[in-house]
Amino acid sequence: MVYVGIDVGGTGIQVGIVDKEGHILCKGGIVTRTDIPFADQVKAMADCVLDTLAKSGYTLDDVASVGAGVPGVTDPRTGHIAFCPNLGWKDVPFREEMRKHIDKPVYMDNDATVAGLAESVAGVSAGTHSSVFLTLGTGVGGGIVLGGKVWSGFNGVGSEIGHMVIELDGEPCNCGNRGCLERYCSATAIILKAREAVKVHPDSLIMEMCGGDPMKINAKIVFDAAKENDPTAVKLFRRYVMALSQGIVSIINILDPEVIALGGGVSKAGDFLLEAVRTEVAKLVLYKALPHARIEIAKLGPDAGIIGAAMLGL
Amino acid sequence: MVYVGIDVGGTGIQVGIVDKEGHILCKGGIVTRTDIPFADQVKAMADCVLDTLAKSGYTLDDVASVGAGVPGVTDPRTGHIAFCPNLGWKDVPFREEMRKHIDKPVYMDNDATVAGLAESVAGVSAGTHSSVFLTLGTGVGGGIVLGGKVWSGFNGVGSEIGHMVIELDGEPCNCGNRGCLERYCSATAIILKAREAVKVHPDSLIMEMCGGDPMKINAKIVFDAAKENDPTAVKLFRRYVMALSQGIVSIINILDPEVIALGGGVSKAGDFLLEAVRTEVAKLVLYKALPHARIEIAKLGPDAGIIGAAMLGL
Repeated sequence: MVYVGIDVGGTGIQVGIVDKEGHILCKGGIVTRTDIPFADQVKAMADCVLDTLAKSGYTLDDVASVGAGVPGVTDPRTGHIAFCPNLGWKDVPFREEMRKHIDKPVYMDNDATVAGLAESVAGVSAGTHSSVFLTLGTGVGGGIVLGGKVWSGFNGVGSEIGHMVIELDGEPCNCGNRGCLERYCSATAIILKAREAVKVHPDSLIMEMCGGDPMKINAKIVFDAAKENDPTAVKLFRRYVMALSQGIVSIINILDPEVIALGGGVSKAGDFLLEAVRTEVAKLVLYKALPHARIEIAKLGPDAGIIGAAMLGL
Repeated sequence: MVYVGIDVGGTGIQVGIVDKEGHILCKGGIVTRTDIPFADQVKAMADCVLDTLAKSGYTLDDVASVGAGVPGVTDPRTGHIAFCPNLGWKDVPFREEMRKHIDKPVYMDNDATVAGLAESVAGVSAGTHSSVFLTLGTGVGGGIVLGGKVWSGFNGVGSEIGHMVIELDGEPCNCGNRGCLERYCSATAIILKAREAVKVHPDSLIMEMCGGDPMKINAKIVFDAAKENDPTAVKLFRRYVMALSQGIVSIINILDPEVIALGGGVSKAGDFLLEAVRTEVAKLVLYKALPHARIEIAKLGPDAGIIGAAMLGL
């Protein structure tokens, strides 16, 4: 049997035919269109699935299930997508529409959650008792897998770890609250803080590395400048590590999973980030003399979305 | 069958014979002694269990299991208590010692965790999909029950919700970190902040209610003065509600349990606290249009420790 995974993003929708070990056998994709009715959007996804399936050499008889990861909240009980702000979806019947075209079991969950599931099936947390996945990208997303199963909570609104509050009256967040982890640990947060910093320190190496244009600053530039011991970049990097470490300390003190996996663009900093975070977390965690969650860099990259969506059917 | 529950505290050890619905049939207790060897401490507990069992009219043949809630970390795999700072225990073989006297299955977990389990069997979260219990007392403890089972994490160091960080560089905590929830939401935190406040506002109703002696301030006095609209007390109460609400918002955004139950001394404020927290949480939670965890006051009071310890054997 094979498993269909659909990774629904704000600009593109990726489709994959995946085996039960989490290997992608064949991929396809379409552009996301929000200017057409929801039923037509789902039909376009189903057509892409059928095309990709044909290319893969498998048939519908081989398909065990269809799974989708979406940037929002789903309700597995009704098969509805409850809320996807970026796509303008509110309480739309995804399962019902998909089954008009592909009559197989249909599963859905949050995109970061399915990426966490992918890592727990075929990635860095494969075979573990429990794992928490953090995507450090434009925002901060979270995926919780406990005993091999996705945990999204009773109402499906959990695993939004980017909106854990780490500072009372802290940085204002798009969600309306203040001090959310996302406002300190996303690539966006690094970029905004770096742009502020280079105004005060125009002599920073960051300015040289972005060709003198603060609008070209990205997280990689800031971390690369920190590696070169640029004082402004080192300060930004230390602030980032402190905030991320405190978020991870809270995850350990609450959930203590076997593995905490860091994914998303910022995690490409690899060992430079990982070593700094591990050192800080070991100092701050409650029970310093006892073992706690291993912190690792995720392995699957952007494919995690397709793989995890497919693995919802396992 | 009956279940033995042992609630191990820093000053006293309470013992109960409990039925499978979580009703205490008979109680006993001894004073905690840390001046005798660990093996003797466990023997004293076992003697108390046997006395209480005899009083209850049941015999050892009726006992299904022995469970203990301890103020620290346990390792269910080895049966050792890994760490109880207040009792001076570090990696002590509780199960082995107890079974020398009572040869039954022996279970252990953290005291707040077992209190949460008790609420989920016989209290406010009975029959729910998932619950998180917070004790608001001298410190802040946490208990997580998912799908009817206690969740203490892979290494057993989870569910320490009082050490979730809610403020970067915040109030210093005994644990060595800063900004832990416990430093804002325990009775201790209220008392310390109130003592500071009455220095600046000696005309506060709080001073009248504590007979002019700031050392006699307790959480009840502060909340009672807030009910009377004393401006100093209202400010302290609002700060408390904001911190607790942000902690609860994080629990919802991460775990989204069906119920969040508030226990411990501070929770005796009942509806006055509950209504304020519910209002604040509804404003701050990520998905404001979707349902989220119900927030409730716990029901079992100090008996939760005995009941939950017994229910570990269910």
